[in-house]
Amino acid sequence: MMIIMRADATQEQISQVVARVEAVGLRAHLSRGQERTLIGAIGDDRTIDKGHFAVLPGVDRVVPILRPYKLASREFSPENTVFPLDGVSIGGNEIVLIAGPCSVESRAQLMEIAHAVREAGAHALRGGAYKPRTSPYAFQGLGEEGLELLAEAREETGLPIVTEVMAPEMVPLVAKYADVLQIGARNMQNFALLHAAGESQRPVLLKRGMSATIEELLMAAEYILSHGNRRVILCERGIRTFENATRNTTDINAIPVVKSLSHLPVILDPSHSTGKWEYVLPIARAAIAAGADGLIVEVHPHPEEALSDGGQSLKPERFVEMVEQVRRIAQAIGRDVAPSPHRERLASPLGAGRRDEQ
Amino acid sequence: MMIIMRADATQEQISQVVARVEAVGLRAHLSRGQERTLIGAIGDDRTIDKGHFAVLPGVDRVVPILRPYKLASREFSPENTVFPLDGVSIGGNEIVLIAGPCSVESRAQLMEIAHAVREAGAHALRGGAYKPRTSPYAFQGLGEEGLELLAEAREETGLPIVTEVMAPEMVPLVAKYADVLQIGARNMQNFALLHAAGESQRPVLLKRGMSATIEELLMAAEYILSHGNRRVILCERGIRTFENATRNTTDINAIPVVKSLSHLPVILDPSHSTGKWEYVLPIARAAIAAGADGLIVEVHPHPEEALSDGGQSLKPERFVEMVEQVRRIAQAIGRDVAPSPHRERLASPLGAGRRDEQ
Amino acid sequence: MMIIMRADATQEQISQVVARVEAVGLRAHLSRGQERTLIGAIGDDRTIDKGHFAVLPGVDRVVPILRPYKLASREFSPENTVFPLDGVSIGGNEIVLIAGPCSVESRAQLMEIAHAVREAGAHALRGGAYKPRTSPYAFQGLGEEGLELLAEAREETGLPIVTEVMAPEMVPLVAKYADVLQIGARNMQNFALLHAAGESQRPVLLKRGMSATIEELLMAAEYILSHGNRRVILCERGIRTFENATRNTTDINAIPVVKSLSHLPVILDPSHSTGKWEYVLPIARAAIAAGADGLIVEVHPHPEEALSDGGQSLKPERFVEMVEQVRRIAQAIGRDVAPSPHRERLASPLGAGRRDEQ
Amino acid sequence: MMIIMRADATQEQISQVVARVEAVGLRAHLSRGQERTLIGAIGDDRTIDKGHFAVLPGVDRVVPILRPYKLASREFSPENTVFPLDGVSIGGNEIVLIAGPCSVESRAQLMEIAHAVREAGAHALRGGAYKPRTSPYAFQGLGEEGLELLAEAREETGLPIVTEVMAPEMVPLVAKYADVLQIGARNMQNFALLHAAGESQRPVLLKRGMSATIEELLMAAEYILSHGNRRVILCERGIRTFENATRNTTDINAIPVVKSLSHLPVILDPSHSTGKWEYVLPIARAAIAAGADGLIVEVHPHPEEALSDGGQSLKPERFVEMVEQVRRIAQAIGRDVAPSPHRERLASPLGAGRRDEQ
Repeated sequence: MMIIMRADATQEQISQVVARVEAVGLRAHLSRGQERTLIGAIGDDRTIDKGHFAVLPGVDRVVPILRPYKLASREFSPENTVFPLDGVSIGGNEIVLIAGPCSVESRAQLMEIAHAVREAGAHALRGGAYKPRTSPYAFQGLGEEGLELLAEAREETGLPIVTEVMAPEMVPLVAKYADVLQIGARNMQNFALLHAAGESQRPVLLKRGMSATIEELLMAAEYILSHGNRRVILCERGIRTFENATRNTTDINAIPVVKSLSHLPVILDPSHSTGKWEYVLPIARAAIAAGADGLIVEVHPHPEEALSDGGQSLKPERFVEMVEQVRRIAQAIGRDVAPSPHRERLASPLGAGRRDEQ
Repeated sequence: MMIIMRADATQEQISQVVARVEAVGLRAHLSRGQERTLIGAIGDDRTIDKGHFAVLPGVDRVVPILRPYKLASREFSPENTVFPLDGVSIGGNEIVLIAGPCSVESRAQLMEIAHAVREAGAHALRGGAYKPRTSPYAFQGLGEEGLELLAEAREETGLPIVTEVMAPEMVPLVAKYADVLQIGARNMQNFALLHAAGESQRPVLLKRGMSATIEELLMAAEYILSHGNRRVILCERGIRTFENATRNTTDINAIPVVKSLSHLPVILDPSHSTGKWEYVLPIARAAIAAGADGLIVEVHPHPEEALSDGGQSLKPERFVEMVEQVRRIAQAIGRDVAPSPHRERLASPLGAGRRDEQ
Repeated sequence: MMIIMRADATQEQISQVVARVEAVGLRAHLSRGQERTLIGAIGDDRTIDKGHFAVLPGVDRVVPILRPYKLASREFSPENTVFPLDGVSIGGNEIVLIAGPCSVESRAQLMEIAHAVREAGAHALRGGAYKPRTSPYAFQGLGEEGLELLAEAREETGLPIVTEVMAPEMVPLVAKYADVLQIGARNMQNFALLHAAGESQRPVLLKRGMSATIEELLMAAEYILSHGNRRVILCERGIRTFENATRNTTDINAIPVVKSLSHLPVILDPSHSTGKWEYVLPIARAAIAAGADGLIVEVHPHPEEALSDGGQSLKPERFVEMVEQVRRIAQAIGRDVAPSPHRERLASPLGAGRRDEQ
Repeated sequence: MMIIMRADATQEQISQVVARVEAVGLRAHLSRGQERTLIGAIGDDRTIDKGHFAVLPGVDRVVPILRPYKLASREFSPENTVFPLDGVSIGGNEIVLIAGPCSVESRAQLMEIAHAVREAGAHALRGGAYKPRTSPYAFQGLGEEGLELLAEAREETGLPIVTEVMAPEMVPLVAKYADVLQIGARNMQNFALLHAAGESQRPVLLKRGMSATIEELLMAAEYILSHGNRRVILCERGIRTFENATRNTTDINAIPVVKSLSHLPVILDPSHSTGKWEYVLPIARAAIAAGADGLIVEVHPHPEEALSDGGQSLKPERFVEMVEQVRRIAQAIGRDVAPSPHRERLASPLGAGRRDEQ
């Protein structure tokens, strides 16, 4: 870290800071400017509270120099992390598509969607059995029954399952059924949960918190990595801003920024990042154009009856169209959508362009 | 809710929306304007997903009319909720002060602070045994040993204990030691934790999430209330904005807004809402002037050695000054700081005004 | 608008609101729910201050129904606005590229860049003669001399000129030299300037303010349109959020949202929306994938010597690469980069993929 | 500034940065850490584009050390700036109150309000003759006729006039009538206007832009100061955040932050910072408790008929109450509301506490 002294700092104050820097095992390096003295604290200070120095007399402010994450950083691990997800690889050159309903509602609903998204080319099935809902009066998910239905859907379609876990003590149960543990945006800094997920053997899909910085997202990944689980997929799902024309603001910059700072795969969730189905296709295309390694998308055959997130779910026929558009964008940048190991026949021919209603 | 149709919506689309409104048990009421048709859905729609209607053909958007919380609302419960906290009342006319270290670090540290804040007039002792830390490499708290030290401090000083609980399965353990369960900003929408806290017998101090709207804060309180626990204290602790001169932006508006929307007590945490000890006193005064029912403040005798949040902790002598200033503001608006049932003698005479170093 | 009464509103208060609605020439339409009464105010209320109604006794809040802009809206004008820009069309199927330095610094600098971007396929030359700078001590632009150099560059290359105007009384002077008047983000709500630009005969490139909502952007366009100038290009250039890994947050959602709400052409400025040249290419691709009608990009042959915005300027060879990538994305969605009417020979062969330094 | 090299920067890249630092007249100072090399650039770099260095090969990022403003800073000018405003002083120990309508609507309206606020103890009259309105269809102010009415109100009541100027060429006209030139939030970075105001002889009331950082506010003040006008009053008026329960979020932290960074007087506008009259009183009290030097408040005898901002205007009797409450808070912190040199008789007795309707 760099400690910037006030313009009126005394020599004694400077000496006190230097002494303190050395007391915590770092080396101090002075740089006297015309208006300010700077004190560099040299050494690995990632575990040291910078607030200690900020409160010393004569200190103006403290500037961190080292990035606070290590295992998640590309400096530490220059090559892309690539790992298999039941037949496809994520983090490599091919685009991975995860699709399914917001909530598991019933066997019929889930099987209909699972078959539809597999036929359209999806590589994994998403669906919530435990739902974080803003209102205690809203549908909270089917719980373990939902997990069983998801396992049944995997049985039927071959698609691996991505589903959310909301509490540390639930990790073993959810990991029993799921192929990938999802940690939702509201739990991105639920450190007890990150810790538990880090001790699990399942890959983790970690969603960015709605007001988390990219650095905080990488620190949350660091929690999981540092507890031994190296298979983390980062997911941009929109951030909260003043703009209210959309549910969230897709931080498309986050895609190339995360790719440059970290070696972990990064995907985008255009359903949550826009909140309206009309905008899912253009934003899905943009994500791939910007370099995302995949997408996670909500699909529901009857959005007007969905128990949650109806307004942002694609109908299966629009999802087919999305896959085709995404494929063309992927090819335009020298990548491709991964072939589906589970699909038996080709998707139906595409619809022609944007329509006003799904 | 009110459903606003597009300007070009057809009669058939309008009829379809009306049919759907009636299908979920609400009554539809049409209002045809020059440019738009509006469809009012009459009845309690708090549990109905508004997205259902947003996706119907011809619908432009859906405007909620009813506030989504009920038990937390002043409409439901017009009188202020007031409840005792070991000798003082919170939510009434008197101001309650909670103070202590960010983290419990050692017996010596905790006892020194506990005595100091009691002498200064604090009514409860805060201190974290389990610490949510952005970095997995930072000090994570003493755990149960910290809880035992807190219980010992209560034994010695008589001050009730406020401490954080981070996971639902920890609620019984923490409740065994603590008088008030704190739910931190990062867990404000950890619904499993809210549920568990709602089933506990302890009052809950619920901190606003760093990007939570006031409505979401009240919905989080609704979770606790709806699971049977009516003793919730709301806490404004600053929100995340673009401004980076301070750690967070104190949303002082939230004080009168929450008081007008809800009957629950509301306090402010000027340590986190500013992030710098220099600003804690003016913001503490502002909170009381705006109508807050209390404050929660970080105090540490040696901020430069604190294991966390050193930069925003007040030294005990500054805390004494804060109490005196807050008392004068409280009296200026016809309230007062609650007398301390635990204090044996008067605080030392005050320092004179703002000094540059603590 | 819709006026939502408080749950405890009296019949007399309701009558008073109805009377007031009728007094301003609107028709009132009552809708009594179980908990609330709503009063619809029917008629064109775009010019009526909704605050009037918000302050009436018994009123809870007022919800606007009509969008406040008219000329800028797609409802008013369903077909895309397309207009020529010296040999190409903007707003149609073809992508338009505007490129050049942040500031005009010298004849040599400007001519070098103008030739380079023309050869790469740009359709217009940007460059600031009057620069809005945060610091009064920073380079403020060459002023009229800069305008003359821009005119000279047009003479030499045939490229039309896009340049910023910062004050209403400067509009005639800038319009004498420029083909398109740019209104910068900081002036998006400089209403005197919007008024003056609305009376000019030049097309206007209107940049979104850094914390302007999409609705406010369209209202700013409405100012220009309502003063008689129908040739407005909207430009997303990033918004201000809490994220500080990039200079701004590219609101990629704004592209499809603006296209759906308005008939005006919309382009993106990836230089300002990211603030770092490394991210310009992926975000340029994303913009086109999301449906933007063009791009405005900063290019400088020696970014390390630029008098402003060096950190976000592309070198000419990277710009060549960008044009090629953007072309492939455009083709993937059935569009294309407009052929350059000014280019004499083909661009040099492309570099291969992302390099670490420009 | 401090230039932080990438972990993999070569010695040659470091030498190149050092050479460049020296080329712009600064002195380079190397500090080699375990993971990073830092290069301090020593000297006054306020006018140097930091982007130059950010783009050099091997550079990770550039951290500014010096604050970019000078004349506005407390380091430069440690004593509070205090200047007279027609009988009272602003910036000293006494609180100054500016009140009046949002817009000047008519002679009758203005005179009624002017007398009312004078009797209540206001020290200056605010009122807009030129109104920045989001909609081109909304009332835009009476223009010069409004200025004449303001001058007439000063004649009648003795109150100095604060009114907005929206374009540089209007400064001389507005300065002819006004005692204080107001620069609105939307024009805080209208640099041509700041320049013109800096050349005027009138004090300037500079409102913070709705998404301006405190540093940018001080830089805007620096523009005015550096053009020769040293009488600047800074005004916090709420910032734009995700919270929508209020029109803006009052950044109460800004009061002590600005007081610590700058010597200029700072006031708060609780009408705009909340947007609802119900919250004006508590936030006015909070501002004074936090250390503001004054308030600017909207007052209208018939808010339900106001041509703008009706919803946030206080009725005169509430303003009387506000003055009394603010006085008690001021006295609690050892300050006082300035006596009114213009008031002939005492204000009427106060109402008792918060009422639900004005």
